[in-house]
Amino acid sequence: MTDLKQQALDYHALPNPGKISIALTTPAETSKDLALAYSPGVAEPVRAIAEDPNNVYKYTAKGNTVAVISNGTAILGLGDLGPMASKPVMEGKALLFKRFADIDSFDIEVKHHTVEEFVNTVANIADSFGGINLEDIKAPECFEIERTLVERCRIPVFHDDQHGTAIVTAAGMLNALDIQGKEIQAANIVCMGAGAAAIACMELLIKCGAQREKIYMLDRKGVIHTRRDDLNEYKKLFANNTDKRTLEDAIKGADVFVGVSGPDLLSADHLALMAPNPVVFACSNPDPEIKPELAKTTRDDVIIATGRSDYPNQVNNVLCFPFIFRGALDVRAKAINDEMKVAAVHAIRQLAKEEVPAEVLKASGDKSLTFGRDYIIPKPMDSRLKARVAKAVAEAAVESGVAALPLPENYMES
Amino acid sequence: MTDLKQQALDYHALPNPGKISIALTTPAETSKDLALAYSPGVAEPVRAIAEDPNNVYKYTAKGNTVAVISNGTAILGLGDLGPMASKPVMEGKALLFKRFADIDSFDIEVKHHTVEEFVNTVANIADSFGGINLEDIKAPECFEIERTLVERCRIPVFHDDQHGTAIVTAAGMLNALDIQGKEIQAANIVCMGAGAAAIACMELLIKCGAQREKIYMLDRKGVIHTRRDDLNEYKKLFANNTDKRTLEDAIKGADVFVGVSGPDLLSADHLALMAPNPVVFACSNPDPEIKPELAKTTRDDVIIATGRSDYPNQVNNVLCFPFIFRGALDVRAKAINDEMKVAAVHAIRQLAKEEVPAEVLKASGDKSLTFGRDYIIPKPMDSRLKARVAKAVAEAAVESGVAALPLPENYMES
Repeated sequence: MTDLKQQALDYHALPNPGKISIALTTPAETSKDLALAYSPGVAEPVRAIAEDPNNVYKYTAKGNTVAVISNGTAILGLGDLGPMASKPVMEGKALLFKRFADIDSFDIEVKHHTVEEFVNTVANIADSFGGINLEDIKAPECFEIERTLVERCRIPVFHDDQHGTAIVTAAGMLNALDIQGKEIQAANIVCMGAGAAAIACMELLIKCGAQREKIYMLDRKGVIHTRRDDLNEYKKLFANNTDKRTLEDAIKGADVFVGVSGPDLLSADHLALMAPNPVVFACSNPDPEIKPELAKTTRDDVIIATGRSDYPNQVNNVLCFPFIFRGALDVRAKAINDEMKVAAVHAIRQLAKEEVPAEVLKASGDKSLTFGRDYIIPKPMDSRLKARVAKAVAEAAVESGVAALPLPENYMES
Repeated sequence: MTDLKQQALDYHALPNPGKISIALTTPAETSKDLALAYSPGVAEPVRAIAEDPNNVYKYTAKGNTVAVISNGTAILGLGDLGPMASKPVMEGKALLFKRFADIDSFDIEVKHHTVEEFVNTVANIADSFGGINLEDIKAPECFEIERTLVERCRIPVFHDDQHGTAIVTAAGMLNALDIQGKEIQAANIVCMGAGAAAIACMELLIKCGAQREKIYMLDRKGVIHTRRDDLNEYKKLFANNTDKRTLEDAIKGADVFVGVSGPDLLSADHLALMAPNPVVFACSNPDPEIKPELAKTTRDDVIIATGRSDYPNQVNNVLCFPFIFRGALDVRAKAINDEMKVAAVHAIRQLAKEEVPAEVLKASGDKSLTFGRDYIIPKPMDSRLKARVAKAVAEAAVESGVAALPLPENYMES
């Protein structure tokens, strides 16, 4: 076992198992404290909520609580290992929510037999929380699960593997296209992979201007086209009326490659076939569709992003999910809609174009960061993200009419 | 609104809504920390749990986590106000778990249409936790809910309104009978109330020696007897073959009165009819079945306990539930069985007979506490409870074969 692997196990086991615990936010030392926290005092907020359900936001932690919920059917890149095995990831997500956005988050692992049973279970407990972050649920079930829960819940429900990935990808992609002097409306896009993240990425790129008919999506059987009869309803939306069948067919002259598939599936020969100034997002993790070294030695006009922290341009969901929920919670949005997602894209994108303060460089361990082909996406440790993304999202929620509260005064200006 | 009521509302609203939050137990500052807490490091505990499900206790917070779950159908004494209105109580319970036993606890409020739906929902999420504390669920549904969940879950499931109340009542009752020179086996017992707590109290008193045929239970229609045809299966177990019909009939010559019903239902005249040296547990809260002042002026041979903190002998569940879960979690008990409940009874009972250290007197705000008619139950602020009750419960779990782990070395000796 490598050092890192043992360190990771020790990190989770010592001094106590796990990564999160409960802390009290009110005094609980004396009998008097407890008479307010519990019987008899607690009867007052109970009565207040019974009279007006909105008071649950005034007297309980609901409004700052996000449940991280999984069924363990698509854990990281490891596959369907069941709900229990997903627990370290879900606790990790809860840790990130707290660390980056001061959101109180805990994990729920759900066992179930059918999609309907999963949805019913989550819908029945949803009112306990201010929001729900779905995680590591396999496609295509994840689409129906999210759609149904969004319909049934009065709080934001967000499948981060889809939308978090899509938002950060879109932010980086728009910046890469800027640098390459390309318009997203005109870009020929190849998407390798047809799972949850791939489909969400393409849908969001379309909302940002990409043309559906210029997208070639590939699953394990090759290009998704209109003559195939093995497509689920989600893949069907990307079926192209085309003679292209293989990655080689599709990649010829393509401006953009997005990989959400597996290691080394994009060869140097493939890359050589792309249009001038190609943009490659090789997001398979930890091993990308093409190694950045190989990409850059093959073509010096490429811009490449990966899912890895040890290369430039990391597509990392943590740039988005803590802050999109922060913004949504702070104006009590009843959902996270497309307007909020697009606002997050532009807030993240814009940040990469700005001068990077010394403290951000220090936190990121970088000597310098200047907008360009090796810096199209902000760094996860960039402390400016919270205010920027949360504010953009909250404003979009208010403007699009899904917020129950107005933007707080001087919101995120401190 | 009285001062206390406003104080209770303020306590819940300020500085932030609610009483609990999430704290991180591992470092999460640097990129290195996050690479252990989340991707890529988190894959290691995921794999370890996939290989051996027991590793979930080694690498996640599961083993120290108790979910407090309600449907809001019987909130305090306020009735069925729905799941949302129960949230302040459930968060309060979570606060008490942390405050008294360092158990990490959070609340889940469940909406549902049928008992089956509630049970399925809770069973589907149960593996996320080390234990489940059911709370404020109305009778008789609570019996089936608890029984079914105990069958379906591999973790302790404990309905505190039933068993916590029963354990503390039984501890105080055995002490009161000692002082009065009575044997529980010979005691004539009147139980006013036939809800969850009443039935659980009587069942546990029976396990402690009480004779079922000497118990007269009353619901709103009077004495529960064998000729009634309106009894649910739980009340039927207490149907007595008797001519007694009213409280007045039943209370004549009774040694013990247990009230889990409503204010002022036991009059001075009723009390006067009881046997010499009667024991009265008037647990209706905040207004007992008979006021202690009235009871004592009516008969100076009475021992009275209530649910109130401003009188001697408070029956308070907090004497039990944090510690019964502490003991159960520490030996990874798969259930909380009768042996563990009876062990808790005797541990609590015994503590009241011991000399009270100065620091406990100080914490409780008492000048002196000596075992006797005004001190048959330990005080909630007695810091000795944790070690005593948890150890007794853990030992009983090991001895009765429901513990997956042996008693830790030097357990609770610090």
